[in-house]
Amino acid sequence: MEERLKQAVRDIVGPENYSEALIDLISHTYDASAHHHRPDVSVWPVNTKQVSRLLNLAHAHHLTVTPRGAGTGLAGSAVPACSGMVLDLCRMNRIVDIRIPDRVAVVEPGVVYQDLQKALRPYGFFFPPDPASGKVCTLGGNVATNAGGLKGAKYGVTRDYVLGLEVVLADGRIMRSGSGCMKSVSGYDLTHLLVGSEGTLGIITEILLKIDPLPRAVRTTLAMFEGIAAAGRCVSDIIRSGVVPSVLEILDENTLKVLQNHSKIPLPRGKAMILAETDGYTEAEADFQMDRVTKVLKRHRAKEILQAGTAQESEQLWEARRAAGSVAANLRPANVSEDVTVPISKVPDLLIGISTIVRDHQLPFVVFGHAGDGNLHPKIMYDPTDADEVRRVTRASEAIFRLTCRLGGTLTGEHGIGMAKAPYMGLEHDAVALDVMAALKRLFDPHHILNPGKMGFPPERECA
Amino acid sequence: MEERLKQAVRDIVGPENYSEALIDLISHTYDASAHHHRPDVSVWPVNTKQVSRLLNLAHAHHLTVTPRGAGTGLAGSAVPACSGMVLDLCRMNRIVDIRIPDRVAVVEPGVVYQDLQKALRPYGFFFPPDPASGKVCTLGGNVATNAGGLKGAKYGVTRDYVLGLEVVLADGRIMRSGSGCMKSVSGYDLTHLLVGSEGTLGIITEILLKIDPLPRAVRTTLAMFEGIAAAGRCVSDIIRSGVVPSVLEILDENTLKVLQNHSKIPLPRGKAMILAETDGYTEAEADFQMDRVTKVLKRHRAKEILQAGTAQESEQLWEARRAAGSVAANLRPANVSEDVTVPISKVPDLLIGISTIVRDHQLPFVVFGHAGDGNLHPKIMYDPTDADEVRRVTRASEAIFRLTCRLGGTLTGEHGIGMAKAPYMGLEHDAVALDVMAALKRLFDPHHILNPGKMGFPPERECA
Repeated sequence: MEERLKQAVRDIVGPENYSEALIDLISHTYDASAHHHRPDVSVWPVNTKQVSRLLNLAHAHHLTVTPRGAGTGLAGSAVPACSGMVLDLCRMNRIVDIRIPDRVAVVEPGVVYQDLQKALRPYGFFFPPDPASGKVCTLGGNVATNAGGLKGAKYGVTRDYVLGLEVVLADGRIMRSGSGCMKSVSGYDLTHLLVGSEGTLGIITEILLKIDPLPRAVRTTLAMFEGIAAAGRCVSDIIRSGVVPSVLEILDENTLKVLQNHSKIPLPRGKAMILAETDGYTEAEADFQMDRVTKVLKRHRAKEILQAGTAQESEQLWEARRAAGSVAANLRPANVSEDVTVPISKVPDLLIGISTIVRDHQLPFVVFGHAGDGNLHPKIMYDPTDADEVRRVTRASEAIFRLTCRLGGTLTGEHGIGMAKAPYMGLEHDAVALDVMAALKRLFDPHHILNPGKMGFPPERECA
Repeated sequence: MEERLKQAVRDIVGPENYSEALIDLISHTYDASAHHHRPDVSVWPVNTKQVSRLLNLAHAHHLTVTPRGAGTGLAGSAVPACSGMVLDLCRMNRIVDIRIPDRVAVVEPGVVYQDLQKALRPYGFFFPPDPASGKVCTLGGNVATNAGGLKGAKYGVTRDYVLGLEVVLADGRIMRSGSGCMKSVSGYDLTHLLVGSEGTLGIITEILLKIDPLPRAVRTTLAMFEGIAAAGRCVSDIIRSGVVPSVLEILDENTLKVLQNHSKIPLPRGKAMILAETDGYTEAEADFQMDRVTKVLKRHRAKEILQAGTAQESEQLWEARRAAGSVAANLRPANVSEDVTVPISKVPDLLIGISTIVRDHQLPFVVFGHAGDGNLHPKIMYDPTDADEVRRVTRASEAIFRLTCRLGGTLTGEHGIGMAKAPYMGLEHDAVALDVMAALKRLFDPHHILNPGKMGFPPERECA
């Protein structure tokens, strides 16, 4: 990157929001995936106008721009695929407005997910999507990746709650889409096209979110099974029974073993676990649904069924699920965490298929996930300095993607394509859809400056 | 349209699915709006392959194609803006699959909305969007216009339930988007871009819909108010109270007068009416929410509050709301029915503003609508043979659109832009958004053959 260009960037955001210091560049080299690449400069714009001027400059000089929130992504979406500028939106972190009678919250992209929840709680409202990284991730990142989480089965994903956006386009033009209305069919749905586009079509600078009244009653139940297939079939039958639990998580035998051997969390014995939560405004509503769930659990011969009587007991049942990811991750130097998703009834096939595949590649792994919406997280552990292990991880992941797509599933339910799944887009999408996506990318970003190298779009031109 | 081209069209669909008969052309000249224009030929393709071949031909010969379902639209979206071919999808009407454990229904576009509901009921499931024309409208039309309805506040709109599509693009290529998964962030969201695009980007030939378990308990309450402003403020406060009724309808004084004078429906006296419905799996849940609603109704000094004790009583409370549109429509030779939508707290401002505007234009009107999601239906009656009345209707509509946009609202909450609102797109959308929409249209349909003259895209080239 030329000195003159760096100077122009610095002039736009001011020296306090600009850095070439190694410590900053290195922290912008990574996200929560295994991908990494160092940018030339880091900037922290503080308002839409600065973002607009930065993109206008980048567009004119074919300068690569990698937008970034908290960097909690697991697919490399926030890692520069080649050098250039990282646009860190964390300093645009105002909750602009909370309008309870409109069911609307207006936020800047850098607002931390949990800060919005805290601000909404006194009104008895909440923002339903529930990403596991909620304590640190930003709402801009949630929108850019259409973040999911634990409560997708009942409450859907981020996309279902985005009513409108302010977006800076690749050439610096500022565009508003949608509105603070609960519904609109006025023109093309630019809002939802931008959601989940991983910063490749524009930079989100303001978000209008739909919010919901908080449910007051919650029931939590944990059940152990003799095998993963039985637990998987049980999930399908819970859905068929006519209730939609707010949480319906599954943990496989490996996850349970890891927790037994490497944590102090007390767990009943079993080879698979289901954690279910139901909710409502009233105890009766939460109970009715949990009774249905419990009946299905019993019909599928759950060995042990623990229902929480208090909030504290519920917290204890949640402990195993919450710890699963991090306890497993600590066993080996590195891991890949996938988020393959299938139609709900295919969860048993996917569970069994994943186990077979990863065992065949002789790698340690665990599987858990949001079975209620068909979304599983196989986490495969490996040593990144062992070339053979790295090769086996890649092969196992590819086999899992192939299986998922054969089952009518999708490569990614909530993490995004990023760099991690870019090579596999053709497994899921037909040639026509890929062609349309590429055309959309060219239309929105003709100089290919916005987050190149992601979602299967080539980085080559910009990295030259 | 040249004879050779007509022959080629007939060869694709067969003579049994092709017509130039006046009776067919005339029935394809209209929808439920005041717009009309006669096509050259009518076709009823029976499968995706025929649609693909028809578009391939139309693309090559720059032949205008107007897709159509049941023609219940109120914005002229299904009326040919210029001649050419009407593509009636009513014969592609198979319910392809119902997969309860996946929460998925797969349908062809010509399936009548109510037929899907009937097919789902034995399983205890339903498709939540609830358009008023459900008895006759088709799901393809619902998706193409992102249909709303009575239950938007709690259940959202059609877009929230479309998981995937099969679409034939303008040049005849067949594309699949989305999948039968509850969630996906794989590539751009082509599915939701197509939803609500009114047949201007592609022809929908198969739809994957998310379905929900049926709520079992319902409470219905009717309340009368001294004035529309009080009723409007009450709506805001119901939302603020932390419950989301499944129905929250409002009827203005004119609507009530029309019902009193021109129907036999027994109605309590009052100058505004609210009809609320709450639901849940349990009676307790429906009661809890209705108790909240009732408290707010009382706080706002509702004159009379009637709660249904039985399903039959509930049916009686619904009678006035159901009849409102048709009783009013019968008073004059013609009417326009708008569907302006504002942030929920602006409903009182919009109600009062609409009344003032239409009175100033000296036209008879009623206002009712889905206040719980900010969506009102001003219905203005006029005589289409009276040029001055027509002029006043147009002026009043434009003034209502201006007011709506000033209040942060949208031109159309559920009917679509079509021809009716095409001239007003600039009131709502900024120049950049309009520019992006036009670019998308060019990208998907370079020869501008798909439903030209709708959504603000020009018909001129094709009508030459």
